[in-house]
Amino acid sequence: METWLPSLLTETPELGFDLAIKLSRVAVKKTQPDEQIRLRLREVYEKDADALIASSQVVAINFQTVAAANGYWRT
Amino acid sequence: METWLPSLLTETPELGFDLAIKLSRVAVKKTQPDEQIRLRLREVYEKDADALIASSQVVAINFQTVAAANGYWRT
Amino acid sequence: METWLPSLLTETPELGFDLAIKLSRVAVKKTQPDEQIRLRLREVYEKDADALIASSQVVAINFQTVAAANGYWRT
Amino acid sequence: METWLPSLLTETPELGFDLAIKLSRVAVKKTQPDEQIRLRLREVYEKDADALIASSQVVAINFQTVAAANGYWRT
Amino acid sequence: METWLPSLLTETPELGFDLAIKLSRVAVKKTQPDEQIRLRLREVYEKDADALIASSQVVAINFQTVAAANGYWRT
Amino acid sequence: METWLPSLLTETPELGFDLAIKLSRVAVKKTQPDEQIRLRLREVYEKDADALIASSQVVAINFQTVAAANGYWRT
Repeated sequence: METWLPSLLTETPELGFDLAIKLSRVAVKKTQPDEQIRLRLREVYEKDADALIASSQVVAINFQTVAAANGYWRT
Repeated sequence: METWLPSLLTETPELGFDLAIKLSRVAVKKTQPDEQIRLRLREVYEKDADALIASSQVVAINFQTVAAANGYWRT
Repeated sequence: METWLPSLLTETPELGFDLAIKLSRVAVKKTQPDEQIRLRLREVYEKDADALIASSQVVAINFQTVAAANGYWRT
Repeated sequence: METWLPSLLTETPELGFDLAIKLSRVAVKKTQPDEQIRLRLREVYEKDADALIASSQVVAINFQTVAAANGYWRT
Repeated sequence: METWLPSLLTETPELGFDLAIKLSRVAVKKTQPDEQIRLRLREVYEKDADALIASSQVVAINFQTVAAANGYWRT
Repeated sequence: METWLPSLLTETPELGFDLAIKLSRVAVKKTQPDEQIRLRLREVYEKDADALIASSQVVAINFQTVAAANGYWRT
């Protein structure tokens, strides 16, 4: 069975950060499934400081989840 | 007794993410129970980058809860 | 002694979600105690996508608290 | 020695919620110490749905802290 | 070696709250190091309800961190 | 193998705060990889109080993660 999210565990913090970005994007995708519309919106918000900061906040929240799941990669 | 939220436990992370989306939508539904109004609003915010990012933030917060409830599906 | 918040413990996740909504509303009530003004504002924000999303975010934060208090209703 | 915040512990959840409101207000007070200006601003945001929702979000975040401090008043 | 943040531990909750405010301000300072610009911006947002509420939210988030670090000053 | 995020562990709280800022910036960079555009946006939001406060909120969220990873540098 295929899944876009097999696990929250990643080998490294960097891969965990990438997963946090993925979680943020999938949430948008599930609300707006039309890729054409998403691409058009992306062109706008990519050049908008407020939207970029808001995006980075979503990533930060998701990274909290992924980091906790991985025991903060302490060992 | 029927309930829309029998449990926070899900078998997989992906199902947990879907539950986080459901929690986000039910919160809106409880504030605005009129489906016609919700559908009209949806047409607007689906094409609004800021609203989509804000939505994905609510999903991220709810996913923190669901992931913690499931022990991050570690095993 | 009467209280609007006797406990954070609820029997089910659904009742916990309802409590999270209640916590969100009481916070507004404590800042704006005038019910007439609150009702007038409600008419506006009920039809405003951004306000609905922001409301659902407050519910999500309060649900984190209630869910943690209840050990995520795991058993 | 006097202090506005002797402890995060409260006897009941309701008193904990009141403390969360207090924490939210003191943060504003420390940024804008002039009471006249705060009162003037209050008149505005008390009638603004977005500001009320934003305020209730700050209360929700502070209530997470107070509730955790009190072990969620479980016993 | 001097540092503006030797520790997250404080003797009292009130000092912890002050540290949360400090963390919030230093984050702004690191993004906008020019004190003149910061002072000019401060004059504006000090009189803006939305900005004050947003500031108090950052303090609330930082206070969560400081309070957790101090075991909520429970003893 | 090089990585921008080898670990969430830092020797001091101050270095942890710097890492939180780095996490916030990398999230923006991953959404807007064009450095020229980022620099142009930076010139705008550096002088915008709301954007600065929003930025400091993202730092606060990331600092929660880094501080938890480091056991709050308690020892």
